[in-house]
Amino acid sequence: MKVTKLKSLLIQIFKKKGLNSSDALISANAIINAEMVGAYGHGLSRLKMYCDRINKNLINAKPKIKIKKISPSISFIDANNSIGFVAADIGIKKAIENAKNTGIGLVAVKNSGHYGLSGYYAEQAVKKNLITMIYTNAPPAIAPHGAIKSLFGTNPICFGTPTGSKVPFILDTSISMINRGKIRVAARNNQKIPEGVALDKFGKPTTDAKKALSGVQLPMAGFRGSGLAWMVDILSGVFTGANHAGKVKDPFDNFTGPQNVGHLFVTFKSNLFQKNYNKRIKENIRITKRLPKIKGVKEIMYPGQNKFRRFRENSKKKINIPKIIKKDLELLLK
Amino acid sequence: MKVTKLKSLLIQIFKKKGLNSSDALISANAIINAEMVGAYGHGLSRLKMYCDRINKNLINAKPKIKIKKISPSISFIDANNSIGFVAADIGIKKAIENAKNTGIGLVAVKNSGHYGLSGYYAEQAVKKNLITMIYTNAPPAIAPHGAIKSLFGTNPICFGTPTGSKVPFILDTSISMINRGKIRVAARNNQKIPEGVALDKFGKPTTDAKKALSGVQLPMAGFRGSGLAWMVDILSGVFTGANHAGKVKDPFDNFTGPQNVGHLFVTFKSNLFQKNYNKRIKENIRITKRLPKIKGVKEIMYPGQNKFRRFRENSKKKINIPKIIKKDLELLLK
Repeated sequence: MKVTKLKSLLIQIFKKKGLNSSDALISANAIINAEMVGAYGHGLSRLKMYCDRINKNLINAKPKIKIKKISPSISFIDANNSIGFVAADIGIKKAIENAKNTGIGLVAVKNSGHYGLSGYYAEQAVKKNLITMIYTNAPPAIAPHGAIKSLFGTNPICFGTPTGSKVPFILDTSISMINRGKIRVAARNNQKIPEGVALDKFGKPTTDAKKALSGVQLPMAGFRGSGLAWMVDILSGVFTGANHAGKVKDPFDNFTGPQNVGHLFVTFKSNLFQKNYNKRIKENIRITKRLPKIKGVKEIMYPGQNKFRRFRENSKKKINIPKIIKKDLELLLK
Repeated sequence: MKVTKLKSLLIQIFKKKGLNSSDALISANAIINAEMVGAYGHGLSRLKMYCDRINKNLINAKPKIKIKKISPSISFIDANNSIGFVAADIGIKKAIENAKNTGIGLVAVKNSGHYGLSGYYAEQAVKKNLITMIYTNAPPAIAPHGAIKSLFGTNPICFGTPTGSKVPFILDTSISMINRGKIRVAARNNQKIPEGVALDKFGKPTTDAKKALSGVQLPMAGFRGSGLAWMVDILSGVFTGANHAGKVKDPFDNFTGPQNVGHLFVTFKSNLFQKNYNKRIKENIRITKRLPKIKGVKEIMYPGQNKFRRFRENSKKKINIPKIIKKDLELLLK
């Protein structure tokens, strides 16, 4: 399917569910971006879930979002259970505005939902010559170090910076060994997952994607990864007023209430301390890329480079839509 | 040796090297803190190195530190190659002051040196009811993903928050599989290091600490850890104006110039968005600690708890000083 065609279908679906044109466009763009960069776990595979939650009034199609200015640098957003894309769009735009005005921006968002890829919002800040750090929490998936029950989400850490080139440096990494979205896609397609990334609900290692989803994902680097996931839960949940400590609801399985996800957006003007920041980062990347490489490695890549390439390549192609998603689309358009 | 005795010896040594009383006290306190929390790689094992670098004018005993106020929230410090402890002490104090005044603080430091443990500075912010994130870079130790030569330092990520109790939450984790300081201590004591944490200079796995020091340390979680180390190099080096991309000098081996390490201190008032932050974080920790535990685990610990306990226990004891360090002390006091 052509991108333009898919976009108009998505807008049509979201408007049918009650979103206004602007919010429908924001949501469609975020989903299409996830497909284009190959992050299928954050793309169309979630469309039906969003619509189900709107149907059950767990996502508010017509939210009254409150924006409170705490200082010229700091804003606080109560998203009133909007779809996460819309809350995050306002969040990053405020963080950009605040940093442009004062050099630094800090925006907390509560009462939001899953917003897709942190990197998508980071890119928007980077395009405005800002450095950014973005945190969001997620439903329980990872056991704290020493526990046999999951509590933290896969809680991504996201960092973005301009590079002096068209290709931004965007690190967007979950704290789990692999992304939950990937396990979810594997489960849908009846594929196995790698060893060492998850335990089943009895605490036994598993390569069965469905068993992994009902079990526990493993954090990277044991106590260290567990600590990083905890940090993200504190920054995006405890600090903002959103749910935390395992209370963020799984959007696929838990329809007892809104998710109340929290987000935190931090932005700095990249040239705050060094006027020639772009020249400096270009040199940093150039030196790193020139290092001797492991046999078989063609190029040392910086975070975000692969996604950018995939995006560019996929922009020229039609979007391939799996059968199961086609069915979702048909049903939702009825 | 009693702590008070050791402190006065350290002050005596630093003053002999030309530091003023205040800077000597700051440096002595930081080193003793590292010993007390059991981070021996950041404690007395570095004393001789600091003094050697002062002797060679690579650490400036009488620095003229410039503090530039960029905005009410943002300060920029040129540490004039001071000993890292002194630069970091000013850095965190400014970051605390700025956050107390405006809700948020951002302080960049360039022309500094190794400052010991990030967590030591994080604690100071946490005691003032601030959330803090601290970054600093370090000499090459970790190969970027795909490279066979080290370039990034072990580049710690540090995060601290008040907990509503006396024991702060301080995550202070290097991006390497284990801390370089630990490998250094193992090398001094002719001990082996664990498997899977380092390669020798030919790219082969090694458990020989000395071979590891001249080789490459492995980042946690491959591309992800490599990306996090790169992020820290950008935040503390590229952004601040300090050395970066492998140019931070190894303080033990490289006497061709000052280190020019960079630091970045970020601070937020913890109650910016939620007045009852302390209650919220207490609940977060309480819920996490109540999870079912892996067999043999007595308590689910949060980052910083172990260090706090070790500090409290060691405060009651004399400090045990290895023979090799005793020799250093004797020589330096002559």
